[in-house]
Amino acid sequence: MAKNNKKMVAAITSMEEDFAQWYTDIVKKAELIEYTSVKGCMVIRPYGYAIWENIQRILDGMFKDTGHENVCMPMFIPESLLQKEKDHVEGFAPEVAWVTHGGSEKLEDRLCVRPTSETLFCEHYSNIVHSYRDLPKLYNQWVSVVRWEKTTRPFLRSREFLWQEGHTIHATAQEAIEETERMLNVYTDFCQNVLAMPVVQGRKTDSDKFAGAEATYAIEALMHDGKALQAGTSHYFGDGFARAFDIQYTDKENKLQYPHQTSWGVTTRLIGAIIMTHGDDNGLVLPPAVAPVQAVIIPIAQHKEGVLDKASELFETLKSAGIRVKMDDSDNSPGWKFAEYEMKGVPIRVEIGPKDIENNQCVLVTRHNGEKTVVSLDELASAVEAKLKEVRDGMYEKALKNREEHTYTCETMDEIIKTLEEKGDGFVKALWCGDEACEDEVKEKTGVGSRCMPLEQGNIAGKCVCCGKPAKAMVYWGKAY
Amino acid sequence: MAKNNKKMVAAITSMEEDFAQWYTDIVKKAELIEYTSVKGCMVIRPYGYAIWENIQRILDGMFKDTGHENVCMPMFIPESLLQKEKDHVEGFAPEVAWVTHGGSEKLEDRLCVRPTSETLFCEHYSNIVHSYRDLPKLYNQWVSVVRWEKTTRPFLRSREFLWQEGHTIHATAQEAIEETERMLNVYTDFCQNVLAMPVVQGRKTDSDKFAGAEATYAIEALMHDGKALQAGTSHYFGDGFARAFDIQYTDKENKLQYPHQTSWGVTTRLIGAIIMTHGDDNGLVLPPAVAPVQAVIIPIAQHKEGVLDKASELFETLKSAGIRVKMDDSDNSPGWKFAEYEMKGVPIRVEIGPKDIENNQCVLVTRHNGEKTVVSLDELASAVEAKLKEVRDGMYEKALKNREEHTYTCETMDEIIKTLEEKGDGFVKALWCGDEACEDEVKEKTGVGSRCMPLEQGNIAGKCVCCGKPAKAMVYWGKAY
Repeated sequence: MAKNNKKMVAAITSMEEDFAQWYTDIVKKAELIEYTSVKGCMVIRPYGYAIWENIQRILDGMFKDTGHENVCMPMFIPESLLQKEKDHVEGFAPEVAWVTHGGSEKLEDRLCVRPTSETLFCEHYSNIVHSYRDLPKLYNQWVSVVRWEKTTRPFLRSREFLWQEGHTIHATAQEAIEETERMLNVYTDFCQNVLAMPVVQGRKTDSDKFAGAEATYAIEALMHDGKALQAGTSHYFGDGFARAFDIQYTDKENKLQYPHQTSWGVTTRLIGAIIMTHGDDNGLVLPPAVAPVQAVIIPIAQHKEGVLDKASELFETLKSAGIRVKMDDSDNSPGWKFAEYEMKGVPIRVEIGPKDIENNQCVLVTRHNGEKTVVSLDELASAVEAKLKEVRDGMYEKALKNREEHTYTCETMDEIIKTLEEKGDGFVKALWCGDEACEDEVKEKTGVGSRCMPLEQGNIAGKCVCCGKPAKAMVYWGKAY
Repeated sequence: MAKNNKKMVAAITSMEEDFAQWYTDIVKKAELIEYTSVKGCMVIRPYGYAIWENIQRILDGMFKDTGHENVCMPMFIPESLLQKEKDHVEGFAPEVAWVTHGGSEKLEDRLCVRPTSETLFCEHYSNIVHSYRDLPKLYNQWVSVVRWEKTTRPFLRSREFLWQEGHTIHATAQEAIEETERMLNVYTDFCQNVLAMPVVQGRKTDSDKFAGAEATYAIEALMHDGKALQAGTSHYFGDGFARAFDIQYTDKENKLQYPHQTSWGVTTRLIGAIIMTHGDDNGLVLPPAVAPVQAVIIPIAQHKEGVLDKASELFETLKSAGIRVKMDDSDNSPGWKFAEYEMKGVPIRVEIGPKDIENNQCVLVTRHNGEKTVVSLDELASAVEAKLKEVRDGMYEKALKNREEHTYTCETMDEIIKTLEEKGDGFVKALWCGDEACEDEVKEKTGVGSRCMPLEQGNIAGKCVCCGKPAKAMVYWGKAY
């Protein structure tokens, strides 16, 4: 590799040396974000935002295919409205931003900037839902929300973040439960097939439920440093919010009934998950489906006659095939360009030089494993398309292998402690009696908290890892982002 | 028409009787918005939001085709940052919402919720622009902003509204001026060709400039009641913001220079403009390009054998052709359905009944003029596609005719007053000396303010309509939303 290349690579901290610094280096050097004078908030730069736009486009299609419609609620919630559901306000009030003045006028009822919008959707549903004919309403919105976090990190935890929040309302509990499961499956499908990121589907323990929910389901992914990251959540509310907000409908027998609700969301945190699932010491590694640039063409010895013309031709070929392609004919060295697009995680590099042109071929290099393939120029578009699929599969297998290597089954607290010491952080599978005191004790003594009770429980005949009483559930434990 | 139909139509106030009430009736009955307990803010409902999504998708494509990239800035601006550009803070500070507390903590530097984001973009540019190689940056964001308006109306003036704000920075004044003009042209193209809404391109007088701009350009449209609506703006900033925010770059000769900036935006107000340009006493009339449903299929005598099957077949035919189509096979009467989709402004109604099926035909009815066309079922998709183009053209011609009928050229103040009295509100074209005192006097005495100095000035040899001194510009005057 060229000198410039080494220079750039040296500028990133290695993952092994300091994972947190490695992460920060990537978000900055891949130009995903920039800091601002607004504490705890960030600018999402064009390259980072283009990833989010791809996530949005694909997920939004999945939501619409499952019958959902987009709406837009106000960004403010009057304090009096936020207070209507007791658990909900207790969960969120301590971490909201308060608007107290509009212009020079002091507000009578101060407004919080939405931390989540259950209360606004409930108020709206109380206005528009009257009869069983009005149900279900399957709504979603793409907005930003604000939570006044003390310590923040780009994408993972910031005071403002972008997300989508689905809010649905149904005639029966059964329908609402099915919706909760449906959206957990949509998220799982999206993470695994689009982001090439394996996830564990599970239910949260009561201590970790969403404020106001009857049940919270989540998908949990394992990051490269062995820490868990909650990648999406889906909540079943029962009729608790409906009762608090007085939402009722007349059923077919003309009787008044309370409807049942759900909410579900994923956030820009998914970009953090992509970085920490797939990234390496050369930078970002992007799943093809959300990569702003799927293939970059790098002309070699571009001053030689015919090279730039041929490179432009390949650019047009790939562009016409619907591939997001870029050609870099700047006067930087090929080595510098290699390092630059490795840093930016572009899935495929296409190298084309005088020798290649002579042989009517070019070289494809895949970012996630560095493999080189020589392909005929006559089959370039189909070769790149096939390679993009292979890349997704390869990235998924690699991430799954990593997760499997860092998932440990333990039967005692001592075993948990010893395993984590020996093998490093990861998911710990251990049985639990269902008692919150045991959950707390596991966390206190071993450092790993409950992440979720996986939907695939397997055989749970056995004893609680903490108290030794008969187990009620198998739990994934881990350190969490 | 059926009884139900009459009943629904009667529920809308007529335009002639009370234009403001007619407008409010439409936004509610076409299910575009719903009010909330957040004063001055609204819920944009699925049908309204789908119009906005279409506007976004088309405009975003036009921005990207002209080289722009999307980013996302924080929603908050620290007070100290807002104050950096003197004119800008004077213009906006009186109408912003202030966040004074985060959680239980009182903020040292309070934050305003962005009313517009020049200050944040400037701060960001000061961090990332250093050399001529870093220029231009052509950025845009799709977000909501907040301005603490005293009186509000759905879409036209609300405390929170959705918009896009483009913010660009260039090496030279010339490039920035070209960008300002380019985006004014993009907006004009969009309004006229996509929304079928004729607009006048012009420059604002100094008293009406954006706070901090050297020049503000706008497109002005004439609503059905003869009032003007500013549909989009494009501002040229010179290097004023760069100086205030200390943004400098080194040019090719290694000298420090101040770059030049622009900003430009359109908002959900465009939905208000669509309503008041095209709507009628039967409700909304939507331009085909942004209509959530472009064609609605209404089976006639749907209990008769074969009708619903044939209607479903037509639905599939139109859907496959990429037309946004809906079939309504509910048990409401055809008359009720006619009125419902007229209210919702669906551009084309497709009627299919037993007689039609016998003759292998159906009836297309266009919303904007009520015309009926019989078409062969074998050519349905191409007939509907052609008709959608005709509809756009017809809507544009109709709106243009209305504007021309309500555009008056006047030479004296008395003539303005008399013309408006006789012919009703509209655009008044009259010459102006360029003096702010005259501008104020015209408004005070005639009720119409300066809307813009059109780019097509024509012959301006003549006298100021107010003071009689030699004119410097032709001005469009009008009452404004």
